Amino acid sequence: MTSVDLYAGIVQGAALVQRRAMAKAITLLESTRADHRAQGDGLLTSLLPHTGKSFRLGISGVPGVGKSTFIEALGLYLIDKGHRVAVLTIDPSSTVSGGSILGDKTRMEHLSVHEKAYIRPSPSSGTLGGVAEKTREAMLVCEAAGYDIVIVETVGVGQSETAVANMTDMFVLMQLPNAGDDLQAIKKGVMELADLVVINKADIDPDAATRARAQIMSSLRLLGLHGNPENMHHDQAIWHPQVIQLSALKGEGVDRFWASVSEYRGLQSGNGCMKARRQQQAKSWMWERIDAGLKQRFREHPNVRTALAETTQQVLAGGLPASTAARALLDLFD
Amino acid sequence: MTSVDLYAGIVQGAALVQRRAMAKAITLLESTRADHRAQGDGLLTSLLPHTGKSFRLGISGVPGVGKSTFIEALGLYLIDKGHRVAVLTIDPSSTVSGGSILGDKTRMEHLSVHEKAYIRPSPSSGTLGGVAEKTREAMLVCEAAGYDIVIVETVGVGQSETAVANMTDMFVLMQLPNAGDDLQAIKKGVMELADLVVINKADIDPDAATRARAQIMSSLRLLGLHGNPENMHHDQAIWHPQVIQLSALKGEGVDRFWASVSEYRGLQSGNGCMKARRQQQAKSWMWERIDAGLKQRFREHPNVRTALAETTQQVLAGGLPASTAARALLDLFD
Repeated sequence: MTSVDLYAGIVQGAALVQRRAMAKAITLLESTRADHRAQGDGLLTSLLPHTGKSFRLGISGVPGVGKSTFIEALGLYLIDKGHRVAVLTIDPSSTVSGGSILGDKTRMEHLSVHEKAYIRPSPSSGTLGGVAEKTREAMLVCEAAGYDIVIVETVGVGQSETAVANMTDMFVLMQLPNAGDDLQAIKKGVMELADLVVINKADIDPDAATRARAQIMSSLRLLGLHGNPENMHHDQAIWHPQVIQLSALKGEGVDRFWASVSEYRGLQSGNGCMKARRQQQAKSWMWERIDAGLKQRFREHPNVRTALAETTQQVLAGGLPASTAARALLDLFD
Repeated sequence: MTSVDLYAGIVQGAALVQRRAMAKAITLLESTRADHRAQGDGLLTSLLPHTGKSFRLGISGVPGVGKSTFIEALGLYLIDKGHRVAVLTIDPSSTVSGGSILGDKTRMEHLSVHEKAYIRPSPSSGTLGGVAEKTREAMLVCEAAGYDIVIVETVGVGQSETAVANMTDMFVLMQLPNAGDDLQAIKKGVMELADLVVINKADIDPDAATRARAQIMSSLRLLGLHGNPENMHHDQAIWHPQVIQLSALKGEGVDRFWASVSEYRGLQSGNGCMKARRQQQAKSWMWERIDAGLKQRFREHPNVRTALAETTQQVLAGGLPASTAARALLDLFD
């Protein structure tokens, strides 16, 4: 298919044609071949006017917290309310080992076969920055195809949470009702990113869930007072992150969760914060890709390639100051 | 003075000559003029064989924790034991506002006039990366001049703690005996960097100090179990971060503090960890300067300068995908 065919398929295609065009477009965007990349850039630019109308929801949590079960329950709930739901995944484990913590779409048995859902697993190679870029682009494809809820899922290991928080309108952290879990999340700086915290499996031990909720609310309060405002995506004066207990397996609490998301969405759209957040995200994304591109060009420059190993060796051996070495290598790059 | 004179003054000069040469050398290294930079690179490379023999101690803590009082007490204690002590400062507030949280050398009344001490305030302009680079280079000058203890001090706001931990052999975090202080430090990721924690002003409320110590030890234990090993500078199997109560004002506990530092230093030198840490630091430093240099060259490139504002505007307005914009700007840079 040409990119014109892909465009038409995505924007106007009927069910199966559209699904096929989406898959092909995302595969094209994931390719590292220069000609594919040029085609992909053209396609994306043409799709852009059709994007931006969805709500972008990030969901993170450690393995075992029940993300798939929750997303399946949430997705079916939303489809029942008339939405079309896309689920994208960033799996940091797959970028390192080629293996995947998050597994494939068969995790969401009912959602994955529903005609109003589109599930795409994590790109399985490249740096986290590259995978995040491809996921952002896949998100635009889903939006252009009319999916009005895009869920981006990741797992609570590595730096992928920041990547997901930086591409979504709302970032949800899933926790188990275990003491100490919140300390982990605070330490990693993930709690600070959260616009909403879900305590899953609350039905198994309601007392523990209640204790965990109190603890997380107190942590969130402290972070609200002392946290780094740059890391927070909501205005503290308007939104305090809520903590919601639910049971994804029994489907209990999904409606309360969505009520809270909708309240947040209404506030953020109304006061212009969502637009500002998306603009900030686009600008950061541009600079992140520029940085990555500069570093790649530097490493691939013939003069640098020739000198890098020996210069590094001299720095390690204490024969050359690191800053002098950096300047010398930069001069070779010119 | 030529850089040959500076070299001679620093390495062989008698007291006043040496002090004057050090000040001139550091000023030269802080200059952004290209000819100064070239001279400075030459000087640093010639000094390098005389460096690396000191112990590099990083000290951080929020304003009011008593850093100056502690460093004055520690410096005088060390001079009394036959050491020569240099104190360098990284003040993130001065890089942003031109103002300084840490103030000037008059903060350390007795130490600043001692002939066996050399105190140099923070470079007062530039990015944090630039300031950190200048401080690293000043550290090499002090070492070449025979200072065998170099203390690099910073304040617990901004990202400067990471910079200091990345240029020293041991990173000490100072805390007040206040509940919640440790949560702040964990959240900011600073607790994780600490090889040793000092609770200052322990004499004012010994019970609170004891509680704070228990709390911090428990946090450190959790971080040891679950923290990111990349952020830790010591091997958990060999060194568990200690927590020491003291009163800098009364000079109580400085000897216990130094005993602990010496134990750490002995372990880290003996097992090769200190050498490995310094090599890792030098390599990171080189890449950090390369990244900064690449970004600067990119921003200053005539084609990029011409296009950047409009391209950014298109990205913000939603007319151009961020990744496409990044690739277009990178193509202009070539």
